[in-house]
Amino acid sequence: MGATSDTVAIGAPVLQRFAADLLRTGGFTADQAEQTAAMLVWANLRGADSHGVLRIPRYVEMVQLGLINPSAEPRQVSGKGAVAVLDADRAPGAVAMNLAARTAMQLSDVHGIGWCAVRSISHAGAIGYYARQVAKAGRVAIAMTASKPLMIYHGSRAEGVSTNPIAIAAPTTNPDRPLLLDMSTASVALGKIMAARDAGRAIPAGWGVDENGEETTDPRKVKAVLPMAGPKGSGLSLMIEVLASVLTGNP
Amino acid sequence: MGATSDTVAIGAPVLQRFAADLLRTGGFTADQAEQTAAMLVWANLRGADSHGVLRIPRYVEMVQLGLINPSAEPRQVSGKGAVAVLDADRAPGAVAMNLAARTAMQLSDVHGIGWCAVRSISHAGAIGYYARQVAKAGRVAIAMTASKPLMIYHGSRAEGVSTNPIAIAAPTTNPDRPLLLDMSTASVALGKIMAARDAGRAIPAGWGVDENGEETTDPRKVKAVLPMAGPKGSGLSLMIEVLASVLTGNP
Repeated sequence: MGATSDTVAIGAPVLQRFAADLLRTGGFTADQAEQTAAMLVWANLRGADSHGVLRIPRYVEMVQLGLINPSAEPRQVSGKGAVAVLDADRAPGAVAMNLAARTAMQLSDVHGIGWCAVRSISHAGAIGYYARQVAKAGRVAIAMTASKPLMIYHGSRAEGVSTNPIAIAAPTTNPDRPLLLDMSTASVALGKIMAARDAGRAIPAGWGVDENGEETTDPRKVKAVLPMAGPKGSGLSLMIEVLASVLTGNP
Repeated sequence: MGATSDTVAIGAPVLQRFAADLLRTGGFTADQAEQTAAMLVWANLRGADSHGVLRIPRYVEMVQLGLINPSAEPRQVSGKGAVAVLDADRAPGAVAMNLAARTAMQLSDVHGIGWCAVRSISHAGAIGYYARQVAKAGRVAIAMTASKPLMIYHGSRAEGVSTNPIAIAAPTTNPDRPLLLDMSTASVALGKIMAARDAGRAIPAGWGVDENGEETTDPRKVKAVLPMAGPKGSGLSLMIEVLASVLTGNP
């Protein structure tokens, strides 16, 4: 994209420092701000602007609403052998997920495989970021997160599941270039529907439904998104929720 | 479906006994035949006829071709802690996968989680069957298998990945009714394209491509199937292959 007269191009390190400053001013500790800014700018660089620095105002609002707890003290609540269950105490998502990734890696050092489930994480952010860190450390990773209903279960007319994402990463011969899949179980990112709404453009059929559960091409009328591949997307999303629920003891 | 004059209705136990007899006559040992017949008839009862007893002629042919080895002696080739890697020595798929499921469960008893990768399994069959056995035994299960290219990688024109399936199962309050997701990463089962071909019916766009990599509605021209949800289905399939490759040391 060419720069226009009202475009200001700034480098990623500058953006990351600015993002961390904003988060710290919004109540995050310095360490929480650094971890979160690194994840957000990574998402921007990957082209997933929906999970980048545009999240900062909401994160600051979440601190004000008590949904993110800058004084959080994540702790292990249960576990056995290669499995650990943490309660993140509503820490910023990047802090909780980085901790989960480190914990799983430590467990895998001992047991060959490690599984860490973490509850009360606030907003996870771009989960590919965490899977990728694990792969950069030479291990295969699977990451999943579950959230509240905002997607239609195939065949129904109301939100039944979230757009629960899954990420899978594996090392390659180049440690800086692991192979990474990072996808939601929805047919489309909510951010693309928002972008069409802001631009006054129609959306293709198959992206979302209106308040009556009917497919719509008017982004202003979208009440819920549709799953990828119909029953497959909603089924996979449901099972991610079930895994999260069983494994965190958070039914 | 109502019975017509040329329909013969037989119960599942009778079909399973007949299937086992056929397999034994085709070279399977009695135990291999029992395990395989149970899996095949389960698939029929679930409505997945594409993975049911219609596979028997091919399984018998695979014995004749040396692709299934009735004298197989599966053994562990490596492992660490909660991870075991087996070589199934081309045992019938149900035998290899049942062994992998039992091995993973035994590991999980000790370590909280168990991961078993098994190579040289011949044809896995309906992988939901194995995940479901684990869930019936009170555990959460994830099962995946990888195979040869027969699906288009999104954006390309030739087979790049298989229709690699994933199954996830979890126990419910009723031990006989675990929750089960069992799906391939393709847009449609190859069996449905074959059925349309046999019936002389056109298929919808989005199912398959012809030898030039162009979408076709003529089932006779289908050279490869398309992935579910475009990049998501082919990406998930690739990562399942990568996991299998890394974990079995079978690159």
